[in-house]
Amino acid sequence: MSKTTTAISPTRKENYPEWYQEVIKQAELAEHSPVRGCMVIKPFGYAIWENIQKVLDKAFKKTGVKNAYFPLFIPLSFLEKEAEHVEGFAKECAVVTHHRLEKGPNGKLIPAGPLEEPLIVRPTSETIIGEMFSKWITSYRDLPLLINQWCNVVRWEMRTRLFLRTAEFLWQEGHTAHATDKQAHDKALEMLHIYQEFIKSYLAIPVIVGEKTPGERFPGAKATYTLEMMMQDGKALQGGTSHHLGQNFAKASNIKFQNIDGLEDYAHTTSWGLTTRLIGAMIMTHGDDDGMILPPKVASLHIVILPILHGKGRDEEVLEKANDLKQQLESISYHGYNLEVYVDDRDKRGGDKAWEWIKKGVPLRVELGPKDIDEGKVCLMQRHLGPKEKKFIDQSEFLSSVTNLLDSLQFHLYEKALKRLQDNIFTAESKEEFYEFFQNSEKSGFIRGYWGEESWIEEEIKKDLNVTIRCIPQDQSDKEGICVLSGKKSKKQVIYAKAY
Amino acid sequence: MSKTTTAISPTRKENYPEWYQEVIKQAELAEHSPVRGCMVIKPFGYAIWENIQKVLDKAFKKTGVKNAYFPLFIPLSFLEKEAEHVEGFAKECAVVTHHRLEKGPNGKLIPAGPLEEPLIVRPTSETIIGEMFSKWITSYRDLPLLINQWCNVVRWEMRTRLFLRTAEFLWQEGHTAHATDKQAHDKALEMLHIYQEFIKSYLAIPVIVGEKTPGERFPGAKATYTLEMMMQDGKALQGGTSHHLGQNFAKASNIKFQNIDGLEDYAHTTSWGLTTRLIGAMIMTHGDDDGMILPPKVASLHIVILPILHGKGRDEEVLEKANDLKQQLESISYHGYNLEVYVDDRDKRGGDKAWEWIKKGVPLRVELGPKDIDEGKVCLMQRHLGPKEKKFIDQSEFLSSVTNLLDSLQFHLYEKALKRLQDNIFTAESKEEFYEFFQNSEKSGFIRGYWGEESWIEEEIKKDLNVTIRCIPQDQSDKEGICVLSGKKSKKQVIYAKAY
Repeated sequence: MSKTTTAISPTRKENYPEWYQEVIKQAELAEHSPVRGCMVIKPFGYAIWENIQKVLDKAFKKTGVKNAYFPLFIPLSFLEKEAEHVEGFAKECAVVTHHRLEKGPNGKLIPAGPLEEPLIVRPTSETIIGEMFSKWITSYRDLPLLINQWCNVVRWEMRTRLFLRTAEFLWQEGHTAHATDKQAHDKALEMLHIYQEFIKSYLAIPVIVGEKTPGERFPGAKATYTLEMMMQDGKALQGGTSHHLGQNFAKASNIKFQNIDGLEDYAHTTSWGLTTRLIGAMIMTHGDDDGMILPPKVASLHIVILPILHGKGRDEEVLEKANDLKQQLESISYHGYNLEVYVDDRDKRGGDKAWEWIKKGVPLRVELGPKDIDEGKVCLMQRHLGPKEKKFIDQSEFLSSVTNLLDSLQFHLYEKALKRLQDNIFTAESKEEFYEFFQNSEKSGFIRGYWGEESWIEEEIKKDLNVTIRCIPQDQSDKEGICVLSGKKSKKQVIYAKAY
Repeated sequence: MSKTTTAISPTRKENYPEWYQEVIKQAELAEHSPVRGCMVIKPFGYAIWENIQKVLDKAFKKTGVKNAYFPLFIPLSFLEKEAEHVEGFAKECAVVTHHRLEKGPNGKLIPAGPLEEPLIVRPTSETIIGEMFSKWITSYRDLPLLINQWCNVVRWEMRTRLFLRTAEFLWQEGHTAHATDKQAHDKALEMLHIYQEFIKSYLAIPVIVGEKTPGERFPGAKATYTLEMMMQDGKALQGGTSHHLGQNFAKASNIKFQNIDGLEDYAHTTSWGLTTRLIGAMIMTHGDDDGMILPPKVASLHIVILPILHGKGRDEEVLEKANDLKQQLESISYHGYNLEVYVDDRDKRGGDKAWEWIKKGVPLRVELGPKDIDEGKVCLMQRHLGPKEKKFIDQSEFLSSVTNLLDSLQFHLYEKALKRLQDNIFTAESKEEFYEFFQNSEKSGFIRGYWGEESWIEEEIKKDLNVTIRCIPQDQSDKEGICVLSGKKSKKQVIYAKAY
C-alpha cells in the first residue's frame, strides 16, 4: 500500500472512528485523561465551547431566562422521587460515600467519614432544582420561573469516546416552571427552536426536528423533542433535547402554586439541554481527510498569518507588517464578536506550520513575505479548498472582504452537510430491504418510513440491527402508509438509524 | 425594645453574622440547599459572578492565558504524589467509591459497582493538571504554558457560611509552567497584581497585599501571596491567592523539559485562584443596615425604573416612557458593558417595590410619573444615600450623567472601605495589649506588628485568641523592631487578625 497523501491517517473511508480520534488529536481539541472516562478539553477545543456558550447564553437571556447555580451533589432520596427518573440514571452514576481520607492499616489512605446518605454526582438536576422551585414558587405571580445552569454532569459510561460519550461532560440545563400545560409545552418548543437555529446557523449543521417515541423519552418526561444530525458515516447524533415534563416532576418535588382563581395546582415544568458533544458533531460533520474544518461563526481562531522569514534583512519589517495586519483584522466585527487572529512566527518550517493549521481547521491562512509587501498583496489560502490552492489579493481587498470570505465558508459547510443529509435518507419497501440496508456495510444513512407505534418494533430492531427510532419528524404528511416492520397501517413516519 | 427602623434586622451592630445571612436572604443572592454544605446561587447573586468572570477572563487572556477543562475527579494516587498537598486536603474531601446504584435487600437503592481506586472530587487541580502538563511539555519551546480553568471544587467544610465557606464553591484556578524559577515567581506576582487591581477597582474593596508565613502557605507551595481584606466587623477575609510552587509539583508530577542548552530540568510552576467568596466579601464590606450595596462595575442590575401607576388614564403612557428610558439607558456603555436596567411594573405597592431594590443594593432607582413626564424630569434615588433622599433632574441630564453617577457611587464605596481599613489597623506595645485587643469584644480590627518568625507564636495565638498572621505585607520598612509576642528582635512586620 502506498503512503497516504492526506494529513490524517486513516482516512474517513479507511476507518471512520479512528479518523475521528486522530482529527481530535491532531487538532489538539481534547484528549483522554488518566481518570477513567473523563476527558481533558484542550484550549483549542475549549475556545469553541466558550463561543457556543456566548451565543446561546445571549439567546437564552433574550427570552427571559436567568442563570443560577445548584449543587453538584444530589441526595439519593431526591433521585428516587421520580420512579422512571431514578431507573434511567441509577445504572451509571458516581456515588459519593465518604467525606475524608485516613491512613489505613497498611499506611495507605482509605475513605473515611461515611455519609449517612450517599450523594450522587448530578447526572442532571431536575430533582434538586425541583426541590428549590418548590420553595420559590407559591403563587401564579412567581410563574413563569425561567432558570438555566452551565455546569458539569456525570454519567458513568462504560464505553467512552471523546466529546460524544464521556463520564463527565459540560452542558447547559434549562429548567422552567409554568402555570399551564400549554405554556410549558410552548416553552419546550421555543427552546428547541433556539437550539435548531443555533446548530444550523452557527455550527453549520442541518438537523431533523422531531419528537422522541415514548421508549426514547427522557426518564419521567411527558414529551421529549430532539434535533437529530447525520454524521459523515451515516450515523445519527442527537444535537440537543427539550423536554416537556408535564406535572410529573412538579408532583415528585411538590412544586405547587395558587392559581389566579385561588386554587392550588401543580406547576408544569420543562427542561432542555445541550452539551459539549456538539463539538464532536462539528468534527464528524465538517472534518475531512486533512483534519478539522471550523465553522467560522464558532471558530477558536479565524485567521492565521504566516510571515515568510528568511533570517535575513527584511524579517523585522515582515513581522511588523504581519502584526499590523493582525491588528487591523482584530478590529473587524464578525457576527457581534471580534475576529481572532494569530501571527505564527514560531521557529519552524513554513510547511509544517501550514499543515498544523490545516489540521486544526482554521478557516483562513494568509502568507506575507517581502514580495507581497512590496506589491501590497497577501497570499490567501482557504481551508475548505485544496491545501495548495493559493490566491494573491490586494491587502485592502482582503480586509474589506474577509467577513464575506468567512461567511461563504460557513455557507459552504452548511450546504455540503445539507446535501449529504438529503442524499442519504432512504425508504424501505419491505422488512427485508430494511434489514439489508442496515446490515450491508456498504450502505449508510437514515431510513424514513412508517412506524406501527408499537414498542416491540423498537426492541426488535435495536436487538437485531442496533437501530433506533431517532425521532418522529415535525414535518409529517397526512397520508397513511404501511409500517414494513409490523405490517400495520400507520400515519406516523419516523427516522430509523444507527446512532452515536 | 422598639421595633427596628432598618430594612435588615438584626442590624450589623446587633449581630453581624446574622445580619450577613439576612442581607443575603433579602437580596436573594443565595441560599442553603438541602445538600449539606452546598449552596444555591440565585440569579441575582449569580449575575455578579458572571460579571466577575467576564472582567477577569478578559484580563487573564490579555496576559496569554488560555482556558481549558480538566476532570472533576482526581484518583487518590494522584493526590498522594505531593506529601504536604494530600495532608492539606485529605481531611475534607468528597470520595467517590461506587459507579452505580442497585436495589438492596430491603428494596432500597444502595451504592454498587465499587471502584478499584477511589476518586476524589477535586478540591483543587494541581495534581491532575500536573499530570497533563507532564505530557504536554517536553522542550523549553513548550514554555511558558499558561492555563486557566473556571469550575466547581469541593472541600468538605464542617461549618459552612454562604459564599464564605461552603462544601462546593465556584472558582477559577490558573496553572502555569515556566523554564526558570524567576519566570514562575514573576507570573505568580503578575496574577496577584491582576487580582489586586480587580478587587480594588471593580469590587471597590481595598486590600493588603503580602506573603503568607510558611505555616499558612498552600500545601506544597514555595511561596503563597495573598490579598487580605477587612470586613466591617474588623475580621479579615482572604480575597485570592497566588502560589509560586517552585519545582515541588513538577517533581511530584514529573514535568520535565529540555532547556535551551539541551539539559533536562523540572519546570517551575504556579497556581492562583479566586472564588465566589468574593461575593461574600462585597456584602460584608459594602452592605449597610438596609441591605446590600452593589458596586456598579459588577452590579447584577444598575438601574430600576419605577413607573408611578394609578390604574387610570395615563398609565399606558407612563409605562411607554419608562420603557423608552430603559432602552436609552441600555444603549449606554459602562466600562465596556451595557447598562442593565429593569422596569418594575409588577402589581405591588410602590413602597414595597422600592424597599426590595434597596435591600438588593441596586445603585440607582428612578421614579417616573405623569407629572415628571410633563416636566421632562425623573426622580432619582441613589442607594448609598438615605432611602428617602430624592432628587428631581431633567431626563436628558440624567442620561448624560448616569455613568458619572455610577462611578461616583463606586468611588464612594471604595473610599469608605479604605478609610475603615486605615482607621482599624492598630499596634500593640506589649503582649498584654495584644491579647487584650483580641479578647475585648468592643475592639475590632487588625494589629500590625513585628513577628519573631517562629511558628510557635502562630500556634499560640491561634489557640489562645483564634488569631492568625494574615500576611507579611509587601510594604515593609527597613527598621528593626521587637515582636511583642516572642520578645525577639525582628525586621518583619505582619498583619495579625481574626479571620473568616
